[in-house]
Amino acid sequence: MRIYRYEENPIVTPADVKPFHEGFEVIGTFNAGIAKYKDEVLMFLRVAERPISDDPNIVQAPIYNPDTGTLELIRLRKDDVRYEFADPRVVKDVTQNVGFAYLTSISYIRIARSKDGRRFTVDDQPFIYPSDKSEVFGIEDPRVTQIGDTYYIYFSVVSPNGIGVSMVSTKDFESARRHGMIFCPDNKDVLIFPEKVNGKYYALHRPTMKSIGSPEIWIAESENLIHWGNHKHLIGLREAMWDWGRIGGGAVPIRTDKGWLELYHGASKEHRYCMGAVLLDLDDPSHVVARSLKPILEPEAEYERNGFFGDVVFSCGALVEGDIVKMYYGVADTSMACAELSLQEILDSLTEI
Amino acid sequence: MRIYRYEENPIVTPADVKPFHEGFEVIGTFNAGIAKYKDEVLMFLRVAERPISDDPNIVQAPIYNPDTGTLELIRLRKDDVRYEFADPRVVKDVTQNVGFAYLTSISYIRIARSKDGRRFTVDDQPFIYPSDKSEVFGIEDPRVTQIGDTYYIYFSVVSPNGIGVSMVSTKDFESARRHGMIFCPDNKDVLIFPEKVNGKYYALHRPTMKSIGSPEIWIAESENLIHWGNHKHLIGLREAMWDWGRIGGGAVPIRTDKGWLELYHGASKEHRYCMGAVLLDLDDPSHVVARSLKPILEPEAEYERNGFFGDVVFSCGALVEGDIVKMYYGVADTSMACAELSLQEILDSLTEI
Repeated sequence: MRIYRYEENPIVTPADVKPFHEGFEVIGTFNAGIAKYKDEVLMFLRVAERPISDDPNIVQAPIYNPDTGTLELIRLRKDDVRYEFADPRVVKDVTQNVGFAYLTSISYIRIARSKDGRRFTVDDQPFIYPSDKSEVFGIEDPRVTQIGDTYYIYFSVVSPNGIGVSMVSTKDFESARRHGMIFCPDNKDVLIFPEKVNGKYYALHRPTMKSIGSPEIWIAESENLIHWGNHKHLIGLREAMWDWGRIGGGAVPIRTDKGWLELYHGASKEHRYCMGAVLLDLDDPSHVVARSLKPILEPEAEYERNGFFGDVVFSCGALVEGDIVKMYYGVADTSMACAELSLQEILDSLTEI
Repeated sequence: MRIYRYEENPIVTPADVKPFHEGFEVIGTFNAGIAKYKDEVLMFLRVAERPISDDPNIVQAPIYNPDTGTLELIRLRKDDVRYEFADPRVVKDVTQNVGFAYLTSISYIRIARSKDGRRFTVDDQPFIYPSDKSEVFGIEDPRVTQIGDTYYIYFSVVSPNGIGVSMVSTKDFESARRHGMIFCPDNKDVLIFPEKVNGKYYALHRPTMKSIGSPEIWIAESENLIHWGNHKHLIGLREAMWDWGRIGGGAVPIRTDKGWLELYHGASKEHRYCMGAVLLDLDDPSHVVARSLKPILEPEAEYERNGFFGDVVFSCGALVEGDIVKMYYGVADTSMACAELSLQEILDSLTEI
């Protein structure tokens, strides 16, 4: 597989973005959704900001207060035995059997704009910012599906009540209409198909189970993009392979003659995130046609291997021009990069199922 | 609170039901949904059958094979250190961070019919039986909502891919139409309201989270009962109270002058299951009006305290006649019982929020 990584990579880094919160530092500008609007490429950056610490023994967890509209900080002592601080992204409560109790940063969505898709200018203000109790820990990993002249932007919302996926829509990227939570917790990595298939909208999603089951890709259908049902398990983890740990949809599915091409992420048991591809039936996307045995993109460049959380390539959006797939992707939970691949080469690389 | 438990309790027990599977024993006839059809009360029993063991050192886990349409048995040695057998309902894989790996019984739905609501005759054949890969570990805890002359029956479906909620509909209880999975894993305890509220259908549901969040009650809306969205967190666990461990909807919400009355179950940290009530706004059921400080029904009778999994009262359906609430409920994960309560007394017992 030929991979052309842009010379400009990483194309947006935390140094390019001024913090929105006073006393905070930007630690991540990553996992951006992508759209074309007029003559520009828009990148919907997940911007992660962390309170600047005044004490190395204290970890501060930012929480949005929907009543006051301000951020509040929880101060946690690193020697507090109730908590575990090994993962830099989260604080775990060792007395609770859940993944985490607090996040160490708060994320929201900011737009970056470009004429050439390589050099971006980041807006000064957030585009989507936490607004209610479902979003008090932040908003993450947006994806964008254009249907007609409407852009649907959906993203993970995080709160003590769970991680779900909410959606807004806009035609001009100035105002946005909120549609509420379209997938309830525990869910993320939703990707809405860009057109109806046999009269129905489809979406990929990635529930995370506690009772039984693994973090794998499911498919659902809808008549109005807001209410979803007929959920079906689509593809699973593969033992001893690059996608054994967890998988989730990445870019909005791409219509090809051979089927719907989904660029998805897979992580190993050691949390190394790669990108692969799966091909779904054109008339029935709940039927899997073919899948990558090997990744189409692995963390190899220095900026992919090192960062806030290293060894991660994680795409939330791609643009297709003829045979060229411009895959934008977050690197190391820190910055944005872009690589061009051949659509035909991706399709040829897949193994029939 | 006055509680009138039927003299006939338990009204259906495993001894009343002939196993459907050869070589199996019925260990549970419980957690039944309830409907009125013509001049009869129909009980949609969850029937749990367990393979009769030929060796005390072996636990057998039944799995439905959708390709052959038959049950297969996995044999697990009790001295196999990879597994844990402490909970009689499940087998845990100690190497996996999920709730369970296998169930020790398989459940499906069978109808019991009665003229007086006390003496039931159980159908010989299953009404809803596993049919696809989402149901290979069985079908559990049905609820029934009547809308017009159509009955919607929805239930937990269990497989290695997760626990979700699927739905069928019928007008005659002879044939049933399948509508697929309406809530994806990890979810159960769905309750569909019996009429539209301000132009939309509503349902309660109970996601279970792994990342963050507790097993609490959410509310969603729909236009067609099949696709669901606008998910909102509704009520949570309460520290050091009877519903601190987990909660979930029980009976179909009851329309009263004061609001929608939901009879829900709550379990303590020690897995003692009680029934309580919550009142939701008549025009906006996502708004909570009042809630039980104390349970309205606790496991006190011998048949409620002792059984396959003791100290459990768990209602999946109730009938309302004037001021009388006939609450049918599963006892000790074993049998069915019924108690009559006063609707007014339940309403009067609630504490405003």
